[in-house]
Amino acid sequence: MKSLVIGGCGFIGSHVVDSLLARHHSVRVFSRHPEIFRQPLADVDYRVGDFADSVALASALDGADTVFHLVSTTFPGTANLDPKGDVRDNLINTINLLDLMAAAGVKRIVFMSSGGTVYGAPDQIPVREDHPLRPINSYGIVKVAIEQYLAMYRGLHGISSLVVRASNPYGPRQAHSGVQGVISTFLQRAHDEEEIEIWGDGSVVRDYLYVADLADFCVMAAASEHVGPFNVGSGEGHSLNEILDVIRKVTGFAISPRYKPARPVDVPRSILDISRARAAFGWRPKISLADGVERSWKWLQNDRPRSIAQ
Amino acid sequence: MKSLVIGGCGFIGSHVVDSLLARHHSVRVFSRHPEIFRQPLADVDYRVGDFADSVALASALDGADTVFHLVSTTFPGTANLDPKGDVRDNLINTINLLDLMAAAGVKRIVFMSSGGTVYGAPDQIPVREDHPLRPINSYGIVKVAIEQYLAMYRGLHGISSLVVRASNPYGPRQAHSGVQGVISTFLQRAHDEEEIEIWGDGSVVRDYLYVADLADFCVMAAASEHVGPFNVGSGEGHSLNEILDVIRKVTGFAISPRYKPARPVDVPRSILDISRARAAFGWRPKISLADGVERSWKWLQNDRPRSIAQ
Repeated sequence: MKSLVIGGCGFIGSHVVDSLLARHHSVRVFSRHPEIFRQPLADVDYRVGDFADSVALASALDGADTVFHLVSTTFPGTANLDPKGDVRDNLINTINLLDLMAAAGVKRIVFMSSGGTVYGAPDQIPVREDHPLRPINSYGIVKVAIEQYLAMYRGLHGISSLVVRASNPYGPRQAHSGVQGVISTFLQRAHDEEEIEIWGDGSVVRDYLYVADLADFCVMAAASEHVGPFNVGSGEGHSLNEILDVIRKVTGFAISPRYKPARPVDVPRSILDISRARAAFGWRPKISLADGVERSWKWLQNDRPRSIAQ
Repeated sequence: MKSLVIGGCGFIGSHVVDSLLARHHSVRVFSRHPEIFRQPLADVDYRVGDFADSVALASALDGADTVFHLVSTTFPGTANLDPKGDVRDNLINTINLLDLMAAAGVKRIVFMSSGGTVYGAPDQIPVREDHPLRPINSYGIVKVAIEQYLAMYRGLHGISSLVVRASNPYGPRQAHSGVQGVISTFLQRAHDEEEIEIWGDGSVVRDYLYVADLADFCVMAAASEHVGPFNVGSGEGHSLNEILDVIRKVTGFAISPRYKPARPVDVPRSILDISRARAAFGWRPKISLADGVERSWKWLQNDRPRSIAQ
C-alpha cells in the first residue's frame, strides 16, 4: 500500500503507522502537528497541515492509494459543547476529503468511527453492526453521518470504504486529559498520586481494546476488499471497578476512588459483538487487559515525554 | 400559538400559514423572499431574511413560542450535487436555529423531515417510524442528522420537537421545475403541452399527500405535546402510471409519456404507515388524490401568477 495516515501523529494514528511499517508499507502522515510522543521516524514522509486545508490535503493525497482517516477535533464528552463546530470540522471536512479523493482517483479509505456512540443505548448486548444507529450525542451523530456519506461516495464515485467502529482503545501515547479514555486517565492519576474520580458506582461496563490490536485491524482491513462497518473491540465488558482492580495490581498502589453521582448520559453497558471482524479477517485481540494495562503503565513511567506530562 | 413559520412563503409553508390563520393563531413568517405565489396577507407579520443570518433569525424568534422549520436549500434529487453545501446550509443552520431557540427560551419546534429519504430502501412496506434510518442520499443524511440533533437538544435544552416525516406533498403553489414533485411537474407540462418524461416503466410507487392535509397535521401537531417522528402521508401507494391516469381524467388531455431508462436511485415502492399520526391525533388525509389533482389543476389554470409560470 501507498498509505496516507491522516492523524498519523495522534494516539491511534501513531500505532497504525507502526503497524504499516512493520508490514513494509509505504507511509505518509498528514498531521496538524509533528510527532509529540516520540522522535520523527526515518521511514515516514511527514506532511504538517490542517485537515481543513484543501490544498495541503490534496498535495498529501498525491500518489497515495489508501487513506486512513483517524482524526477528530472532538471527543464524545466534548462535542456537545459546540455541535456546529463539530459538524464543520469533522463532517464537512470529511466530505471535502472524499471530494479530493474522487478528484485524485484515490479509491480506498478506512475511517475511524465509534462503536461506543453510533448505536446510542443498545437494545441488546453485545451489539452487532446491523443494530439501528441512534446516536444521542453530537460525536455519534457526526460519525453516523460520515458513515452514510462514505456509503454514498462508494456508490457515486467508487471510493471503497471500510468503517471501524472501535470500542474504547487505550495504551501508550494516549492523552490523559480526562476526556480520551479512563484507563490512561486513571493510570496517570495513580502515577501522579492524584485522586481518581468515578461517575456513578463504578458498575458502568465498557469494552476496552489495546491500541496496537486496533491498529493491526485497520491495516489488515485496509489491504482487503471488504467494505462497510466492522465492530472492533475486545468483545468483553469490564466495569470501572474491575479496571481499578487491574490498575491496583499493575501499579501496586492502593487506590480509593471518589464516587460521584452517575451521569444520565452514560449507558450502563456497552460491549461490541466482534464476530464480523473475526469471520472476515480471522482477527482477534492479542493483548489481554492485564497485559495492555501493564504496557501502558510502563510507557507512562519510562517513555512518556516530560514536556507533555500534564 | 405565537408561531414563527420559517419558510412561510414557500410551498408547504404558505399552507401552514393558511392553516394557522384559520385556527386564529398569531403568525409571523421568516422567509428569504416575499410572497411569490400570492399577495401578502394582512394578518401575517413578514420578516424577510436569510436562514443563515443569525441576527435576523434571533429577531424573528423574539416573542414566538412555536417554530415551524420548513426550509431546505436542497431537494432530494439535487442535494448530492453539493453535499458540503447541503450540510452547511441545512444542518449547521438548523443547529444554529436550535442554539438561538435555547437562548431565547423558545421551547417548541415542528421540523419538516422526509419520509421518502430517511429510511433508504425500506425493509417492509408500509414503513413505520421505528424502521432503521439508512438514508442513501445527502438530502436524507442531513434530515436524519437534524432529527438526531433535535432529540439531543430536547434532552439538553428542553426544546420539545416533533418531526414530520412527510411523504410526497403536492398541490397549489408547488414549484414545478422538475425537482419538487411529479404531480405538479406533470400538470404543468400537460398545461403547456410539453412532453412528459418518466424514468423507468412508470411502475415506481410513491405515497402522495395533498399539501393542505400536511399543513393541517403540522398545526395540530404543534399545538400538542407529542414529540418525535410522525409519518405523514396518505398511507396509500400510487404508481406513476396511475398518477398519469388521474391527470388524463382531470385535464381531459390524452397524454403519451416518454419512458426513459430507470434510475438505480429510485426505490421501487415507498408508502408510509401513518397509524401513529392517526392514533395520536385522529388525523387522516381529507382530500383524495383525484380531488387534490383537480384542485392543483384549477390553481395552475386560474391562479398561478404569470410571472413565475416557468
